[in-house]
Amino acid sequence: MKLIKVAIAGFGSIGQGVARVIDMEQDFFKSNSYDVRVVAISDSKSSIVNKDGLDIKKCLETKKATRRLSDDNRTSLEIIKEEEFDILIEATPTDIETGGSGLENMKEALKRKIHVITSNKGPLTVAFGELTETAKQNGCELKYEATVGGAMPVINLMREMMAGNKINSIRGIFNGTCNYILTRMYEEKSSYEDILTEAMELGIAETDPSYDVDGIDTACKVVILANSIFGMNKTIKDVKITGITKITYEALEMGAKEDKTIKLIGEVTREGKLLVEPKLVPLGHPLAVSGTLNVAAINTNLAGEITVTGKGAGSIETASAVLSDLLYVLKKNY
Amino acid sequence: MKLIKVAIAGFGSIGQGVARVIDMEQDFFKSNSYDVRVVAISDSKSSIVNKDGLDIKKCLETKKATRRLSDDNRTSLEIIKEEEFDILIEATPTDIETGGSGLENMKEALKRKIHVITSNKGPLTVAFGELTETAKQNGCELKYEATVGGAMPVINLMREMMAGNKINSIRGIFNGTCNYILTRMYEEKSSYEDILTEAMELGIAETDPSYDVDGIDTACKVVILANSIFGMNKTIKDVKITGITKITYEALEMGAKEDKTIKLIGEVTREGKLLVEPKLVPLGHPLAVSGTLNVAAINTNLAGEITVTGKGAGSIETASAVLSDLLYVLKKNY
Repeated sequence: MKLIKVAIAGFGSIGQGVARVIDMEQDFFKSNSYDVRVVAISDSKSSIVNKDGLDIKKCLETKKATRRLSDDNRTSLEIIKEEEFDILIEATPTDIETGGSGLENMKEALKRKIHVITSNKGPLTVAFGELTETAKQNGCELKYEATVGGAMPVINLMREMMAGNKINSIRGIFNGTCNYILTRMYEEKSSYEDILTEAMELGIAETDPSYDVDGIDTACKVVILANSIFGMNKTIKDVKITGITKITYEALEMGAKEDKTIKLIGEVTREGKLLVEPKLVPLGHPLAVSGTLNVAAINTNLAGEITVTGKGAGSIETASAVLSDLLYVLKKNY
Repeated sequence: MKLIKVAIAGFGSIGQGVARVIDMEQDFFKSNSYDVRVVAISDSKSSIVNKDGLDIKKCLETKKATRRLSDDNRTSLEIIKEEEFDILIEATPTDIETGGSGLENMKEALKRKIHVITSNKGPLTVAFGELTETAKQNGCELKYEATVGGAMPVINLMREMMAGNKINSIRGIFNGTCNYILTRMYEEKSSYEDILTEAMELGIAETDPSYDVDGIDTACKVVILANSIFGMNKTIKDVKITGITKITYEALEMGAKEDKTIKLIGEVTREGKLLVEPKLVPLGHPLAVSGTLNVAAINTNLAGEITVTGKGAGSIETASAVLSDLLYVLKKNY
């Protein structure tokens, strides 16, 4: 049995989902000869550490009751500097301007030769090259399946399953909020504004929805795909972005008359085109999925177009993507 | 550089596609330290062997010009018994009654401790348990990604990417001919018979289409998924099968009025339900894909429903699935 010590930075929806999933999968880990223990968790206000492994259920209860983890006031960065562990799961909030504390956490961990698995788009959008280079220099894994399409296994699918294929382009719906709004506008014959209000009430759209509806979130994912799959060195400035705020019900209806629907499509091509814009998609095409679903169509030289669809958000769903990265890191390194 | 000797049994559309792809991927193999050589090919009439590696382009030309490979009359089974190689790619025609020569080829190869990769559903439908047991006893790989959904990476996706997830059920469109017929019937407001004739003329349907349209082919894939993913020991007799021959344009039109479409769905659940039948699928659902596409929706406990779509047939597309199995076997064993 190999003892693996994990720390979780960020204990919101995703961090808590990851903790829950690691707790649920104990038998599975053990059947593969891994004794995986969460030895440290930190949120924005507090941390909790137990070198022998934390009681995750208790941590979740404490967080719920007190909105803190313990009276240990150390930041995630201090925990990374001071504690001993093998793998950091970085799930702090996204900051696409500077990379935020997530970027500092990831750099510090990699320098300390700690493998990093993240769901945090910010650091990868801002400093992809620097992070992958730091990981390489320190012989560490840097894995980020959860940053694009939540549960949808898109990056690992391309790297592992499609090996030997030349990938020509990747197109997809990478934002569930936009997909929800466009789907519901057509279903309810409603305006953009009305459905945005509904989505906010349901918690599907944020109070400030601009990050989603202006296409910024989709653009971040396009940047991550460009850099990771095509080895580019792009930032969000390289993406031509149009959001969905000017789409009307009438436009959706016109599309429907020709058996088409409008979707906010993010696209990156081998030639270096990075684009986010609303596009007409024929009904019956694999990209024409409804609701909050995400989808990626991968155009290849041998397999043709392979499309993968899944839930783009959700605590446990996103944690499932983190789990697949964790299993990869375990198998390859221990 | 590790020298890997491959034999191909069956040199129709798939076998030729595999040969072409192995030829195309020489630089890729070499960059991964593998010197992959095809040392034997056999079709139903003839064989050709070169211990140092065959000239694939020449083999393809000879086959085209003479409909044979050489004046060597040995069968694929004789080649497997008499020649030395590491991996058999079995692509002989499907026989779902007895398993056909494919079954004999695969058993003989495994007994000789030769890894087997196949696109042939017959042997796996008839004798899944016996084949996997023989592979296990001889320490060999038995890989069959190409048997379900052609280029669509469904079996390896579930095994590798979704590890840690409990799979509850798999539903999908596993027959491109049926999907084509149902799609075109609605588009052209035409009868089943008219579109079947069109599909035959285009070479999408066979001269005897019953294997596809009666749901038998879909049922074979359901059996392979049941046995491989859920560890069952099912045969085609365990599948409740209804085909598409009684679907009318009127039924498709009625569905369309409620934004639904009719698809021939194959399904297997963890509880042991194996089913093939036409079902109404909402437009915008990931299963509602048109044309000759195949699709599989994998219902899991953590990731939710993950759907993967791709070309279910085609020489190079199917060869791409064989290639992914080949890379797996190389990585894991050499």
